[in-house]
Amino acid sequence: MSSQSPTSTRRQLISRYIPALEWLPRYRRDQVSGDLIAGIIVAVMLIPQSMAYAMLAGLPPQAGLYASIVPLVIYGLMGTSRPLSVAPVAIVSLMTATTIAPLAEQGSADYITLALTLAVMSGVIQVVMGFMRAGVLVAFLSHPVLSGFINAAALVIMASQARHFLGMDIEGDTFVQQAISLVRNVETVHLPTMLLGLLSLLLLLYFRRYATKHFSLLGVSTSIAMQLSRAGTLVTVALATVSVWFFSLDREAGIVVTGDIPSGFPGLTLPGFSPDLLIQLLPAAFVISLVGFMESVSVAKTLASKKREKIEPNQELVALGAANLGSAFTGGYPVTGGLSRSVVNDSAGAQSGLASIFTGGFVLITVLFLTPLFTYLPRATLAAVVLVAVIGLLETATMRRAMAYSRADVIALAVTFVTVLAAGIEIGIAAGVATSIALFLWHTSQPHIAELGRVKGTETYRNVLRHDTDGDPRILIVRIDENLYFANANRLEQTIWDSVSSRPELSHLILVGSAVNSIDTSALETLEELTTRLKLAGITVHMAEFKGPIMDRLQRTHLMQLVGSTNVHMTVSEAVRGIELADDPGKHGS
Amino acid sequence: MSSQSPTSTRRQLISRYIPALEWLPRYRRDQVSGDLIAGIIVAVMLIPQSMAYAMLAGLPPQAGLYASIVPLVIYGLMGTSRPLSVAPVAIVSLMTATTIAPLAEQGSADYITLALTLAVMSGVIQVVMGFMRAGVLVAFLSHPVLSGFINAAALVIMASQARHFLGMDIEGDTFVQQAISLVRNVETVHLPTMLLGLLSLLLLLYFRRYATKHFSLLGVSTSIAMQLSRAGTLVTVALATVSVWFFSLDREAGIVVTGDIPSGFPGLTLPGFSPDLLIQLLPAAFVISLVGFMESVSVAKTLASKKREKIEPNQELVALGAANLGSAFTGGYPVTGGLSRSVVNDSAGAQSGLASIFTGGFVLITVLFLTPLFTYLPRATLAAVVLVAVIGLLETATMRRAMAYSRADVIALAVTFVTVLAAGIEIGIAAGVATSIALFLWHTSQPHIAELGRVKGTETYRNVLRHDTDGDPRILIVRIDENLYFANANRLEQTIWDSVSSRPELSHLILVGSAVNSIDTSALETLEELTTRLKLAGITVHMAEFKGPIMDRLQRTHLMQLVGSTNVHMTVSEAVRGIELADDPGKHGS
Repeated sequence: MSSQSPTSTRRQLISRYIPALEWLPRYRRDQVSGDLIAGIIVAVMLIPQSMAYAMLAGLPPQAGLYASIVPLVIYGLMGTSRPLSVAPVAIVSLMTATTIAPLAEQGSADYITLALTLAVMSGVIQVVMGFMRAGVLVAFLSHPVLSGFINAAALVIMASQARHFLGMDIEGDTFVQQAISLVRNVETVHLPTMLLGLLSLLLLLYFRRYATKHFSLLGVSTSIAMQLSRAGTLVTVALATVSVWFFSLDREAGIVVTGDIPSGFPGLTLPGFSPDLLIQLLPAAFVISLVGFMESVSVAKTLASKKREKIEPNQELVALGAANLGSAFTGGYPVTGGLSRSVVNDSAGAQSGLASIFTGGFVLITVLFLTPLFTYLPRATLAAVVLVAVIGLLETATMRRAMAYSRADVIALAVTFVTVLAAGIEIGIAAGVATSIALFLWHTSQPHIAELGRVKGTETYRNVLRHDTDGDPRILIVRIDENLYFANANRLEQTIWDSVSSRPELSHLILVGSAVNSIDTSALETLEELTTRLKLAGITVHMAEFKGPIMDRLQRTHLMQLVGSTNVHMTVSEAVRGIELADDPGKHGS
Repeated sequence: MSSQSPTSTRRQLISRYIPALEWLPRYRRDQVSGDLIAGIIVAVMLIPQSMAYAMLAGLPPQAGLYASIVPLVIYGLMGTSRPLSVAPVAIVSLMTATTIAPLAEQGSADYITLALTLAVMSGVIQVVMGFMRAGVLVAFLSHPVLSGFINAAALVIMASQARHFLGMDIEGDTFVQQAISLVRNVETVHLPTMLLGLLSLLLLLYFRRYATKHFSLLGVSTSIAMQLSRAGTLVTVALATVSVWFFSLDREAGIVVTGDIPSGFPGLTLPGFSPDLLIQLLPAAFVISLVGFMESVSVAKTLASKKREKIEPNQELVALGAANLGSAFTGGYPVTGGLSRSVVNDSAGAQSGLASIFTGGFVLITVLFLTPLFTYLPRATLAAVVLVAVIGLLETATMRRAMAYSRADVIALAVTFVTVLAAGIEIGIAAGVATSIALFLWHTSQPHIAELGRVKGTETYRNVLRHDTDGDPRILIVRIDENLYFANANRLEQTIWDSVSSRPELSHLILVGSAVNSIDTSALETLEELTTRLKLAGITVHMAEFKGPIMDRLQRTHLMQLVGSTNVHMTVSEAVRGIELADDPGKHGS
């Protein structure tokens, strides 16, 4: 009996980190068809997409396929989101490219090793953050910063695909440099490549926007029409590949194709571990971990809503980290949960993590037996696949909302957007986070401080600027609408002191604390100094409407001795009545 | 008539920057005796003190005297504090030394030029900050950070004076290195120097602690006894100097003396202006400007309390900046308002800035005619003057208060204290500020979120954990005690979603906003997402007790459309009644 408890605790701990141990034993046979169909549909979508993202990352196309096997299986077993599909995504692929490009030549063995190393580092950072329950850290990537970053990243990705889409050479590391290079060398555009790219783009957009409707018009049932449309990427890629092969466009028209992709699974691959390298990659690995987690968890949350499912962010970090480690040791590169394919997985009927595991299985079969089919796949078509995916990333909703709602957030968004385009991703995100923190501190350092007066004919006290009030010239009532802390303590003191200096007849100050959620040591000392100074100036300080938890903490402080328990009141009107009664007992009642 | 207005505006502007233009015309003859006596007493205190501080700054003693002439006159004309005495102080002298020591050899012409440059830069920074009304920036130096810094700085100053006080060589830049050096080379202590230093120290402490009482016991009136005690530094210095001269201790016992001090005022001195130099000095100049201003303005505020006088912080910045510029061009180094001599100035009867101007005049007379008197002044005695001054800087009140009140503030204080000792002043202050900001963000990122219930038998709603409440299982009432912003938006969503997932019978969520002072765009979007997700899950969101200014801003947002105006309520009980009436009209009234 006594050994029961530790065993069950250990089992609980293991199944916390591997939720599949919880749901697999309860898995019902009738769920398997949903998982299988969803798994196939996502695989059909993912195979061309992952090759396109690998190209975006500067890696050979097979790296994308390799990164779409083991990570899916690991996340399927360890993740807390049922439909989340963890494999290469556009933003993380871009970040991989911008991190490694300055360190090794694209396509070289060093480049591939660096991608593996980056995956291992991101994985370790995510697992450690998950164990430390540090998932809350992503909160510091505010929505405006994320929006500025993602919009800028979409532009950066488009610029980076221009070379494949237009068949030309483009120079520069940042968006600004690449855009200038594109405009300067526009006469070097390779027309056949551009034509093929545009045709691919139009076909992809057709499948995305109109195919479902047209299939339905042809009498196909809506659900099958939707499934057929989802094969759009595969159809486009297949058509382009067959055209290139049939008309020998690679030799006749100079279309760049994918070329031979080695068959078979890569087996165990080894990342590089030199200390210099690790230190150099650390900032990028950290940003990739955070951004990847953020993107993934927001997709997972959105999809969990309908069924009141619960996402456990810290376990998500552990699962994503494990998926990245899996990717690192099987020839892949950093991965995370992607929006579009997870939505497809969900709506195609995924019942559990098994759907992801099936997807990984189908990609594995492709890698083992079907890679020769991709030899004539044109790079311009893969670039079109990337372009269509990142068009979906562009969004102006946050910007419009911020414009209507908060100037500070517009600034944070704009700073991030411009800095990412001009100076790169890590610097851009760091600048955005620093700006949003600075603006928040600035805002809280300038609290709204309202002078209250008695609304005429009532016993309620309101802002004298907003209501028709009267008051006693001997009494000043001040409400502070902010946490009191070091950044605003001086300002509060100054504001009150300024009011006091201009009222020679003043003898009582009532501080109203209904909106104060915390008081730090600096503010406490400032309040003590203020109370002492006011006492010297013949003014008594009263406190009213401070909250229970705050009063509990203040109880033990010098401030309470200075103010005196008789000058602490529940309500403002109680405070005012007390003052009037004490100053002029005869007056009360009149 | 029409030219009257611009002229008077210009005059107002000028007298805003030179308050003396306001008070000088109204100056009464009977005030002059107070100013004159205070001016003399402060000069008697300041002359040895300023030479000692110059030594601490690594400068020749006359630099301290030069910095005690023009700055006092300028501040007397431009300052908004009547008794503030602006000249060298211990902390700023130390910061001057630690900034310049790595760049030039102590005592060299370069070293002196660097001190002038530092003064010019601090002055310019302060004037610019004053014009930009950026005085609020000092708010980010929280009390615990300042306390940690000042205590550490006092220890650093003591370590730096050990070489003069003990007549030995001490190596190292940081306190830790110097302390190790002192212990290792303790056998090189020069005994006669140490003896003289200890005697000087005891005499200074005697004057500070007991002299007033003993003079009173001898029948001297208390006020004269106090004035006599204030001459303690001068008496000590005079006694030590006469002893060294009379017994030829400099030659006989190897006591290091001040030596010849050039007579006469230095006239115009020129700081260095090479761009490299300016960039190198910039961080230190910035910290000196901020710390100097902070120290000065807190002294000014304290002394202004009794008479309800008003200190204008931004004009203080301009005045201190001008004083620093004055110091830079007349052979001085960075200055600021000092506590002890300002208190003396005030209690000795200073009526106006004229007291400071008189002090400057007396120091000028000393520089012109009396410098030969300081030739035999022993350095060990000046070191004792510094030690006595910095003993007064050590304080544990903030630490004790923080220990009893706030763990976060203890951390900020400890980080600053340790980093200043181990890595130096600028790094220490930066680490302290970063720590206190990080802890504030951390604190606000984990808001207190209370579930409310109806206190049994009443219509009031309170925290279910603090009160005996009942409630409807279909309704969850949640009060958020914090500003809603990017750092806590996710956490709020997670907390609410977790509660919702565990209550299958839930159909209404009431958000209570009485303690929310602001909502940023990130939090707004999170609330919108949450409302949408909850709607999908069949749960209606209600809002209650949000404040007027917040509701004004929310009015134009998508959130209001999602929640719906009928679900916005003034009070919680109104919201609950509304829900019960709508869900079950028959039940109401039972």
